[in-house]
Amino acid sequence: MNAPIPRQGTKGERTRSRILDSAMELFSRSGFYAVSLRDIAAHAGMTHAGLLHHFPGKDDLLIQVLARREQVAAEQALSSDSDLAPEELLSRHLDQITLNMGTPGLVGLFVKVSGEASDPAHPAHDYFVQRYRRLRKRTAWLMSVLFDRATPPIKHDPDAVAQQLLALVDGLQTQWLLDPEQVDMRASVVAFLTQLGLELEPDDRPHP
Amino acid sequence: MNAPIPRQGTKGERTRSRILDSAMELFSRSGFYAVSLRDIAAHAGMTHAGLLHHFPGKDDLLIQVLARREQVAAEQALSSDSDLAPEELLSRHLDQITLNMGTPGLVGLFVKVSGEASDPAHPAHDYFVQRYRRLRKRTAWLMSVLFDRATPPIKHDPDAVAQQLLALVDGLQTQWLLDPEQVDMRASVVAFLTQLGLELEPDDRPHP
Repeated sequence: MNAPIPRQGTKGERTRSRILDSAMELFSRSGFYAVSLRDIAAHAGMTHAGLLHHFPGKDDLLIQVLARREQVAAEQALSSDSDLAPEELLSRHLDQITLNMGTPGLVGLFVKVSGEASDPAHPAHDYFVQRYRRLRKRTAWLMSVLFDRATPPIKHDPDAVAQQLLALVDGLQTQWLLDPEQVDMRASVVAFLTQLGLELEPDDRPHP
Repeated sequence: MNAPIPRQGTKGERTRSRILDSAMELFSRSGFYAVSLRDIAAHAGMTHAGLLHHFPGKDDLLIQVLARREQVAAEQALSSDSDLAPEELLSRHLDQITLNMGTPGLVGLFVKVSGEASDPAHPAHDYFVQRYRRLRKRTAWLMSVLFDRATPPIKHDPDAVAQQLLALVDGLQTQWLLDPEQVDMRASVVAFLTQLGLELEPDDRPHP
């Protein structure tokens, strides 16, 4: 017997959303292993048993938190209009990096979990394998369009560049978390893209 | 009172070396948290108390294993003659990536620990902060020499490229550990360097 699929905005959906907010906040602050389901339940203003009614365990919560972070970022990047120009898509990816620089706890969680998840027994292993396959494909598409539109057209291999770009973004997170004064993640990604021959919109971030 | 500095090759030194070999092998195979000092002592053929005589704890052992891995790699890269050509230094760095592709356990340990170490309370935090500062500096020097020697000279910023290169190598490890069939770390780094305008020696790896 299947459980009924809750409609958006039902009481159950809102409760799940509140639990995920609490889990994201506590995981980001203290890391995955240091936080218990009881901590998350208390933060969300409910009992341990009440939380277990919505999520079977901490592993499941972690995947949902990671997936939701991606969903939020993807929704921001693709927003309501699906025919966004590739230049605008790239610009939104860069804005995501700026946003990440405001949430070191969440970035740290992502780095830690992606490091642990190479173990096939890790609860987030499949999530991460699929994540990178999907991202390599999407990013290669974006690069190929941008390379073709450039004047003169850029001749680099979009698949190779996509893999490099994703690796660059990940590796910068490690360096930035360790030494935030020495590493500007956005500037480094912009430099990488500029070296390739891409012309980017000027950075309109407020300077601190 | 300071302990006497052991000469190279003393019995104490050989015992420390045997313990580090065991720790590196077990950490690489099972990860840092799953391995106990008792496991390492048993693997090295000694008692737990005997091991504690040489290393005060597991944190200390981890730092020594990480530092020794770097020392081995640095010695390989710089070898006996200090006036190695920059092209040869770069080629040895690439060879190190090929070697890493044969030791996924050790790469996985490095990725996991560098992810955890962004926490200032982590035993390897300072080690990693200093590691990246040192590597950014050395790599920027190497890039500046190679850029100047190129025909025509390459105009990219060596500091910016050094940071990217280190981040690329780290980020590729995450993707490669998750999906080794899909990611060739060496080929990706070579593509990055070629895009910059550097000409590299042909890859003489045996093909599997």
